[in-house]
Amino acid sequence: MSGSEVKAIEWLDGRVRWLNTLKIPWEEEYIETEDYERLAQAIEAMEIRGAPAIGVAAAFGVALAAVHSKSNDVETLKLELLKAIERFSKTRPTAVNLFWALDRMRAVVLRTYGDVDGLRASVVKEALTIYEEDIKTNLRIGEVGSELIEDGDTILTHCNAGSLATAGFGTALGVVRAAWRSGKKVKVIATETRPLLQGARLTVWELVKEGIPVTLISDNMVGYVMSKGLVNKVFVGADRILMDGHVINKIGTYTIAVLANRHKVPFYAVAPTSTIDPHRRVEEVVIEERNPDEVRKVLGKILITVKDVPVMNPAFDITPPELVEGIVTEKGVARKPYRETLRKLLGL
Amino acid sequence: MSGSEVKAIEWLDGRVRWLNTLKIPWEEEYIETEDYERLAQAIEAMEIRGAPAIGVAAAFGVALAAVHSKSNDVETLKLELLKAIERFSKTRPTAVNLFWALDRMRAVVLRTYGDVDGLRASVVKEALTIYEEDIKTNLRIGEVGSELIEDGDTILTHCNAGSLATAGFGTALGVVRAAWRSGKKVKVIATETRPLLQGARLTVWELVKEGIPVTLISDNMVGYVMSKGLVNKVFVGADRILMDGHVINKIGTYTIAVLANRHKVPFYAVAPTSTIDPHRRVEEVVIEERNPDEVRKVLGKILITVKDVPVMNPAFDITPPELVEGIVTEKGVARKPYRETLRKLLGL
Repeated sequence: MSGSEVKAIEWLDGRVRWLNTLKIPWEEEYIETEDYERLAQAIEAMEIRGAPAIGVAAAFGVALAAVHSKSNDVETLKLELLKAIERFSKTRPTAVNLFWALDRMRAVVLRTYGDVDGLRASVVKEALTIYEEDIKTNLRIGEVGSELIEDGDTILTHCNAGSLATAGFGTALGVVRAAWRSGKKVKVIATETRPLLQGARLTVWELVKEGIPVTLISDNMVGYVMSKGLVNKVFVGADRILMDGHVINKIGTYTIAVLANRHKVPFYAVAPTSTIDPHRRVEEVVIEERNPDEVRKVLGKILITVKDVPVMNPAFDITPPELVEGIVTEKGVARKPYRETLRKLLGL
Repeated sequence: MSGSEVKAIEWLDGRVRWLNTLKIPWEEEYIETEDYERLAQAIEAMEIRGAPAIGVAAAFGVALAAVHSKSNDVETLKLELLKAIERFSKTRPTAVNLFWALDRMRAVVLRTYGDVDGLRASVVKEALTIYEEDIKTNLRIGEVGSELIEDGDTILTHCNAGSLATAGFGTALGVVRAAWRSGKKVKVIATETRPLLQGARLTVWELVKEGIPVTLISDNMVGYVMSKGLVNKVFVGADRILMDGHVINKIGTYTIAVLANRHKVPFYAVAPTSTIDPHRRVEEVVIEERNPDEVRKVLGKILITVKDVPVMNPAFDITPPELVEGIVTEKGVARKPYRETLRKLLGL
């Protein structure tokens, strides 16, 4: 990584430090804590967001619980850590990386230890491994994905799948970044991504920082820009990918995929293989419904409608496999039929 | 009309009074002027908006010019009025009702008059006729369109095609209103309609006032609600309809039409026949590009992105005829092939 991406989340010897993405682009506020409950709240409030970043944050949270526990007894500490894991599993229901990271932490907790220091050290080490792996994975995804991009392409992306959604570099934006750094002249069209405006706030901010040309549009302009032939490819992140190729991602993704399909624009989902859910069927996926005031207001500041009017606020939607040209991972690009190619990619 | 709709625009004996829709839903601010330039600015700033309302406002503007002119000479007054017509024709380029109303006013101005009072009276009378016709037309559109709605339907609408977009009653919302008043239990899903949020601000406000159940969604949730089977029909207004059935309407309409098509949800455009442009081909339609700060900010108040980032801000998009199930007018519902049915409807 070069210096142009920020660190969305870091482990600082017994403390966790993160960039409060709710304050971007107005202010770069970093928050530090030793308290895992505070970190869990940061995930719920979306100070930290993006599927890979949430997984890393939850792992760090379990590490905080280990380091700051007063317990001198292995079994008691294990129970405390399982309680912390339980707490983080309740923060957000849709992103699978969260559960994947917590499963890894749980497996480490449940090993046999001679003393609490050994348990503590192992837990911290596993969290740091998850963090470091995420950065490496993102860099590799960038290499893999950038081969799909041609010089001069205009890429449409939705929400933020960049440095601010991962331990570093980014997934969908990592692909764009890798293409740009390899000398391809790419441009990006970023959707603002209501209700929380991650596209307008985070994606634009990251791309401007890196010097990659970006144009912002409202979410309802996607059909317009595609009908004008202004988009060559779509790259988005993912919060959960099913083995049959269903892509669960930020609300609005499905709308974009339908339009891309109509206009024969290839639509790629980009994610680490930790985003692939090997178990669940599409009917079993829980779509998080968030606070209605996120829709009634903008950034919690301006009420844009009649007070208390009923709203829907699903955080994600589901894009069916037939609309997905490819799934870009650190292990390669899977293409239809996904049931076969994803299995192969995961070595199952 | 019952008392539950507001008057978006009125002629008050030599003054024009309008509801500043930019202040809705927070405040019901009425503005009055004798100055046609101020009224032209109200159209540009979208204090008055919606294709039929703009047409009425422009006609009233020419009437203001006539009433307040100091001229005692018919030819001089005619030139002044033609200048006023020219001014209004520059306010907004896309809505055809504006040009249709100005053409009517120009024809009246160009008649032969014995004195300035005769000219003044004819101009005022024509403007009032346009206003009264618009209300009657909307009521008739409501009757025609409500027959397409079944008891229990959930209607998705975009932007605002209600009382606040017309002289009264509304087009797409007039259809919903008529169905509701005839006893059909309808529900509405309203898209917020970035950048200017006419759906969240105006449509929700009108429907809450009338007691019609409404749920607000962000623009990028349209795919989600359709994939969940929550929408039975789409009704939207139109700013210009071409003889081949192309529908020019608020940005985001095309995206909704593509999704409706995929989910086999009938998509109707609703407008008076004055919205039909008998002359232009789709390549000739000018799509208004508005101030980029409308996208960079929300309601001119909060900057939601990096200052000065490039944006696109087309005010309208174009929905091709194959996605349009029907065009609802005061003279009936036209269906494919539109080249034949619209011609017949217009009596051409």
